[in-house]
Formats: sequence, C-alpha cells, structure tokens
Amino acid sequence: MTEQAISTSPRTTPAQATAEADLVARVVASFDNTPDPRLRRVMQSLVGHLHAFVRDVRLTEAEWNAAIEFLTACGAITDDKRQEFILLSDVLGASMLTVAVNNQAYEGATEATVFGPFFLDAAPQIPLGADIAGGAAGEPCWVEGTVTNTDGNPVAGARVEVWEADEDGRYDVQYPDGRIHGRARLYTDDDGTFRFWGLTPTPYPIPDDGPVGKLLAAVSRSPMRAAHLHFMVAAEHLRTLVTHIFVADDPQLAVGDSVFGVKDSLVKTFARQAPGTPTPDGRALGERSWSRVRFDIVLAPAVI
Amino acid sequence: MTEQAISTSPRTTPAQATAEADLVARVVASFDNTPDPRLRRVMQSLVGHLHAFVRDVRLTEAEWNAAIEFLTACGAITDDKRQEFILLSDVLGASMLTVAVNNQAYEGATEATVFGPFFLDAAPQIPLGADIAGGAAGEPCWVEGTVTNTDGNPVAGARVEVWEADEDGRYDVQYPDGRIHGRARLYTDDDGTFRFWGLTPTPYPIPDDGPVGKLLAAVSRSPMRAAHLHFMVAAEHLRTLVTHIFVADDPQLAVGDSVFGVKDSLVKTFARQAPGTPTPDGRALGERSWSRVRFDIVLAPAVI
Repeated sequence: MTEQAISTSPRTTPAQATAEADLVARVVASFDNTPDPRLRRVMQSLVGHLHAFVRDVRLTEAEWNAAIEFLTACGAITDDKRQEFILLSDVLGASMLTVAVNNQAYEGATEATVFGPFFLDAAPQIPLGADIAGGAAGEPCWVEGTVTNTDGNPVAGARVEVWEADEDGRYDVQYPDGRIHGRARLYTDDDGTFRFWGLTPTPYPIPDDGPVGKLLAAVSRSPMRAAHLHFMVAAEHLRTLVTHIFVADDPQLAVGDSVFGVKDSLVKTFARQAPGTPTPDGRALGERSWSRVRFDIVLAPAVI
Repeated sequence: MTEQAISTSPRTTPAQATAEADLVARVVASFDNTPDPRLRRVMQSLVGHLHAFVRDVRLTEAEWNAAIEFLTACGAITDDKRQEFILLSDVLGASMLTVAVNNQAYEGATEATVFGPFFLDAAPQIPLGADIAGGAAGEPCWVEGTVTNTDGNPVAGARVEVWEADEDGRYDVQYPDGRIHGRARLYTDDDGTFRFWGLTPTPYPIPDDGPVGKLLAAVSRSPMRAAHLHFMVAAEHLRTLVTHIFVADDPQLAVGDSVFGVKDSLVKTFARQAPGTPTPDGRALGERSWSRVRFDIVLAPAVI
C-alpha cells in the first residue's frame, strides 16, 4: 500500500460492524469444503481469531504493512541454523502454550517446559557418572536423581537426554565448527537412579540480532533466558517428558524468562562448592569450584 | 520437536484451564512496559487472540511444527518480485478486512477493495481517451465515467490510476523483461469525466506454486481471482479510493474471489461489441471485438 492510500478509522457504525462480520463469515465459509475435518477446524478457528484481532485493534494499513515487513524479515534471516519463526513463537508464549496444551499436568508427575531449538539426536551416549561437557567451558556441576513412575516405582533403563549452553551462553550448534559438546544420552540404573557431570547453567540471550530481537527492544523486554539445563526423559509405557531445571539463585528468574519456560516446581538449588570440597565420585577438580543439584523425575503414564 | 515428544490432549481439567490462563496473563503482562501505547495495545491484543486460537483448537505439537514449516516456506519463496506473506494475508481475508476497517463505507461514496501487489508508481501518464494497453494482449475495452464528491459535484483534475492483467492473466511486473504495460495515470477533465481504452478483464490465479497455493489446494479452494480492473483515485480534500471493478458475467463471481475482494456495488456490465461496431472515439479496431463499461466514482470527504 502506498502513502497515497489514506487510513481513516472513524467510530464503527452498526452498518460497518455488519459489513465486517459478513466478511469474516464469508472467509470462514470458504474453508467449508476442506476434506480433512481437523484442517477445516484449525483454519476456521485461525481465521476467526485473526479477524477478531484486526477488528479489535482497528489495524491501520501502515501497521498491516509493518506486519508484512516483519514476517518478510523473519523469513530472510531464517536458514538451516537460525529459526526466527520459532523465536517469534517463543517470545509470544505460543511455544510454551503449545507445550502446556499437550502436556497437561498429571498429579505427582514432573512438569514439562519448552523444547527449544538446540536438541540434537546425535548426542553421544555416556555411562552413568561421566562428564557431558566434552570440552565445553564452565563450572562443573554434579547432577543426580531418580526416575520413577507416579506410583513411586523406580524406572530402570529410562533414556535421559541432557543438553545445555556453555559458560559463554552458547550451545555447540551455535559454533560454526561442527563441535559437539554439552550434551549426552544416558540410561538410568537398575534402581532408577542417574548421575553425571554437567556445567552450572548460566543465563544467555536468545539470538537477538534479528527482527524478533528488534521487537523485544521495542517493547522493553529482556532477551535473556533464565539459566537452565535441558532434559528429555523417555521410558516404555510412560509419557515422554521434555523439561528444564532452573537455578534457584539466578537473578534472571525475577526479571522473567524471555520464552516463559519457568515453572516453580522446576527451580532447583544448585549448591555451590568451594574449591577443594571433596566430590561425590572422588573426581579431582584441583582449584576449581563446582556445584551440585538433585532432580528427581516422575513420569506420567503414556495414556491418561 | 521430535517424534519422541508424545502429544496427548486429554479433556481439559479446571487446573489445566487455570494454568493456561495464567500463562496468557504472564505473556500479556510482559508487554506492560512497552513505551509506545499503540504498540503495547496491538501486541497485547495479538497475544490474547493467538493464545485463544491455540487453546481453542488444542493445537498439537505436530501442527505447531507444520505452522513453523509453513511460515519458513513462505519466507523462502519471498523476494523482490514475490510476496507470499501478502498472498497469505489475502487468502485469509486479512487484507480485505484491513481495507474494510480503514475505509468505512460513507453514504453514497464508491466502495473500496484490496490494493493487491501489482501497483507501480512508475505508470506512464496518458491523455484522456488514450490506450493504457501499451502492447499488452487482450480485447480492447472502452472505459468511461465521472469522478464526483458525495454532494454530486464533479471533481476536475482528480488523479485516476488504473492497472490490470493482460489476457494471459499476468501483470507486466510478472514478466522478467521489465516491460511496463496495462497501466496508466490520467486526470479527469474540467467536468470531472474520464475515459480511456483498456482491456476487457479476464480471471487469473494468484501465484499458486508456493505454500499458499498448497494451502488452497488442501482446503479445496480456487486460486482464481474474479476478473477485474484496478483503480486508485485521489483528489484534494477527498478520501483516496483504492478499488476494482468486476465483470458482471464472469462465472468466477459465483465460485468466489480468492482474496474476497468482490462487493456487489463494484460489479459492472462490460457490454460486448461485435467486430465492426463503431467505437465511441472513432478508433478503428478492424476485425476485433471490443467491450465498453461505465464507472461513475464518488469520493468520500478525506476527514469524516
């Protein structure tokens, strides 16, 4: 639309309201012949809510243009390594809401949170008690816990996948050199326990040099994520859990997590240990400080 | 999200509904400190409607993935000459609704419709009665009318911009060779009249070889636009009018216009003229048929 097209938004008359409602009805009806009933329902709901938004704010033509330009800029920066549309969904809370809708809380089970864009199927498998750092920089952190079902029975052989950023706030896949670090797959022991060395999590910003970063700046929001360690835990007959644990004394918790991933039940105490404090497995850390955290995981039934 | 993250959508419990509502409230509140009050209102409304959509359809994680992939594909096909996000807005009726919101009907004034992506500022200026075809293929069409204000007074010197597809359904800008045809700018006479030779409009599909075309196919909708001729009319102290006229006997009108641009008041009779019928200005068309149409344009006041 050019400058020549003047925008005017006078008070809405009854005739105008009727004309707008008629248009919405026509657009919704255009999806009536969709063969797949689920696609029909999703598209008709989408149209209803999209039109309600445009009418609610009386969207101007300049704002419509800005929206088209914003989406175009998101498309231009997106490639194999950068996904601006996921970031957009994240900062609008749509990712977290989708997680919530699909992982309804189950009495006694550990809560889920956002998956994020940094999981890799190719993580190395490690034995219990080994180090996932793989060369990543950061303070060592001893992580231990159990996997049980909601009856309290230990789950042997549960697959536990963990991944996290290094102390510079970057995941391995954010480096251009193809390194793999800060991630691993392990399996619980016969008694349902697990343990490994990771890194004490640190806060980091979501990639904020694109249109989503500009949006956050325009609305005075922090791009920082609260410090966290990712888990995905799977076992037969139980619901796969995708979650994080957060660091209780992280000041970012008060500021807010940029993707709305924090749940109170997932905030854990990472106990700081002075250099020289004996480690649980006798590992020698020399002059380095370390931390330790316990995370007991309860999986819901797969079908509830 | 991977296949490993199982989606489950059990009946929503009261606790679940509360958790979802709390999340929406948190996301809305995250925009509270937006310095620009209009941006704050737009973003908070957008979040509210977006979350209502996700909750309404109980969006699955697979559907969320499909949405991200769809937007990514729209971004990938968009460039200087192709704008898939505008097409998406068009086929969801959001473009037409934005036009409606910003161009409220004014008693007696000609109705507006979608602008479309094919306007060019660089159209050649022509004298009244000249031919806008500029080499574009198609049946000649004599177009005449008046521009008046809502008091019925003629508007002298109103700028009338017209543009249309050729008989193959393509605008000049859709050809790779930089040609300019099928468009012009002219000015009304002292008595508010205008006249020119154009082309009888023919139906054509919106570009449907991308993700929006795939969406239309999946929902069994036609990508065809009803045949039309674009107008943008501007004059001092009057509201700029962006509109089309449609062809009364176009069978596509019954099927539906893919971008919802049709309004009854804009459907005009294009009277077909047999070869040899004398033309209004004595132009010799040899063995060619031609058509004629009258479009009397009434502009609303600029501020209403």
